[in-house]
Amino acid sequence: MESPVFRLCSSISYSKTFLHPISTINSPKLYSIQRRKKLFYSARSDSIPVCSEGGVFLSIGTHLIPHPNKVEKGGEDAFFISSCKGGIIAVADGVSGWAERDVNPALFSRELMAHASNLVEDEEVQYDPRTLIKKAHAATSSVGSATAIVAMLERTGPLKIANVGDCGLRVVRKGQIVFSTSPQEHYFDCPYQLSSEAVGQTYLDATVTTVELLEGDTVVMGSDGLFDNVFDSEIISIVGSYNNIADAAKALANLAYDHSQDSSFDSPYSQEARTRGFDVPWWKKILGMKLTGGKLDDITVIVGQLGSTCSKGVGKLYKKTLMLKLVNGNYAKMLSMCTFRTVVVSCI
Amino acid sequence: MESPVFRLCSSISYSKTFLHPISTINSPKLYSIQRRKKLFYSARSDSIPVCSEGGVFLSIGTHLIPHPNKVEKGGEDAFFISSCKGGIIAVADGVSGWAERDVNPALFSRELMAHASNLVEDEEVQYDPRTLIKKAHAATSSVGSATAIVAMLERTGPLKIANVGDCGLRVVRKGQIVFSTSPQEHYFDCPYQLSSEAVGQTYLDATVTTVELLEGDTVVMGSDGLFDNVFDSEIISIVGSYNNIADAAKALANLAYDHSQDSSFDSPYSQEARTRGFDVPWWKKILGMKLTGGKLDDITVIVGQLGSTCSKGVGKLYKKTLMLKLVNGNYAKMLSMCTFRTVVVSCI
Repeated sequence: MESPVFRLCSSISYSKTFLHPISTINSPKLYSIQRRKKLFYSARSDSIPVCSEGGVFLSIGTHLIPHPNKVEKGGEDAFFISSCKGGIIAVADGVSGWAERDVNPALFSRELMAHASNLVEDEEVQYDPRTLIKKAHAATSSVGSATAIVAMLERTGPLKIANVGDCGLRVVRKGQIVFSTSPQEHYFDCPYQLSSEAVGQTYLDATVTTVELLEGDTVVMGSDGLFDNVFDSEIISIVGSYNNIADAAKALANLAYDHSQDSSFDSPYSQEARTRGFDVPWWKKILGMKLTGGKLDDITVIVGQLGSTCSKGVGKLYKKTLMLKLVNGNYAKMLSMCTFRTVVVSCI
Repeated sequence: MESPVFRLCSSISYSKTFLHPISTINSPKLYSIQRRKKLFYSARSDSIPVCSEGGVFLSIGTHLIPHPNKVEKGGEDAFFISSCKGGIIAVADGVSGWAERDVNPALFSRELMAHASNLVEDEEVQYDPRTLIKKAHAATSSVGSATAIVAMLERTGPLKIANVGDCGLRVVRKGQIVFSTSPQEHYFDCPYQLSSEAVGQTYLDATVTTVELLEGDTVVMGSDGLFDNVFDSEIISIVGSYNNIADAAKALANLAYDHSQDSSFDSPYSQEARTRGFDVPWWKKILGMKLTGGKLDDITVIVGQLGSTCSKGVGKLYKKTLMLKLVNGNYAKMLSMCTFRTVVVSCI
């Protein structure tokens, strides 16, 4: 049984050249958000007791590897985690096509996650992930678009998920995947996306599902950079191989990264591409060749393991909303803290 | 928009030799169950109003094709549907291995579904599919085991699903699958199963999920005979090709049947087998051969389409619990009624 604390285990992997503060990103809206609330590994000053009775919670490990060509800017994925109630995890993946219009695709996903992080305790949200997406999307004013997934755990076990696009979530139980989200897309490689433009999708397009978690379950959430490069069987294998969830998150991200750079790997992405009719020219097929290879992309992995608190004599868990994202000068702070592989952030 | 009635569209396919009453199955328990409640397309005499306000409901079509070698006994799948609240659909698949112990594998699945059908309004069940499985399993005294899936729709939209084993369910929305159950198994071709023996699984092993349905969604539930032989892309294609859900159910079952008998078809089953390490001998691989073919099995398909009632002036929907299963002399009755392809059963 898990010890009765909320644990956060986080690690972020970059090339060596990235281990420096970045302050070149112009994002005044995010600055203002950060001023309102400390987002980086900091408890809010108004922390209040959430739960003195027993219940389940997620211990969380994270790992993010930016696209190799986007390391300098930190990639276009953003995510946040929160210990509100049983725990909240969320990922947004900025749609890279915006770069062709001279828009930084990272701004929308980062602002979306920043707002979502701020809104988890909003009265109207009522701990409903679809409503959280609705309100965060409405609050986001950056130009761009992003896929997004939010999962909120009740202390009694239900994990409620809202998903727009091709981020994903798996639940691993006793060595098998018992729950998977399904990606939504307009056509191959064009996912449903929350957008600054009217033509995009909204919270109404989110697929909303609930899965009853059991103690010991492992939740794996990620951007498509994970699921396009790593098979479910590999996720099961890695989850089963690591006791430390931060190590599991890192191993999954590293495996996705390795596969993404392997042109001979017959990845989930290349298999899906062939299924959709994309393949090598006919004369290469005659020679026995086929379309293979992983998909270069930002890779975000969040691994959560379900534990439970004893009903009494444990001490209180306190609400703490944490934000891990890749903006402005706060990189250095985040990275330096991440040298602690396992960080206990809210064990009271 | 759907017309405001609960519609049942059912068709059952057998070889010609099967169009006769079967009275050779020894199942006194089922007889006693049938005496208590009319299960075959009959409204209960104590029908009471369920819902006078608006809400969603499932229009349902079904199709069942027994394993070619089990046609005389009707196969080992059983299922039921009910118009309670938004609608209930359920499938059980008797585990064929019991035949080696001189046990008819169909008895357990049929009795399980019969009890489940009787218990949908049980006070303790509280419209919860896992509890329904619990109580139906506890009431089943036949020797044997079965996989089982139960899905219960609330009038407000949530479809709650409990699943033990490798029956399955898909939700098709706007031409894509937005929700899939995941099969549970001990190892390849050995699914989790509710059993008369202590070594089997119970309701506690059920994966419990909820998906928020939207009007126009199509739900496809089936035994593994469907999902082992038909790809999700084919399910999407067929669901999109038929306006009549009974025709869609029949087309899916027929496609599964055709694939199951095609030794060259690279089915979901053969692909999964190869993934698990089952394949042709090495010398055949050198010759470019691989394990292919569908899987001969009982095939049960239930297709439900979500509609909604107007809030007022529609008339009342009445509770009617229906049972379609393959036992005793009631075959003929069921089959004769099934000559009506579309049967309006509870439009008041």
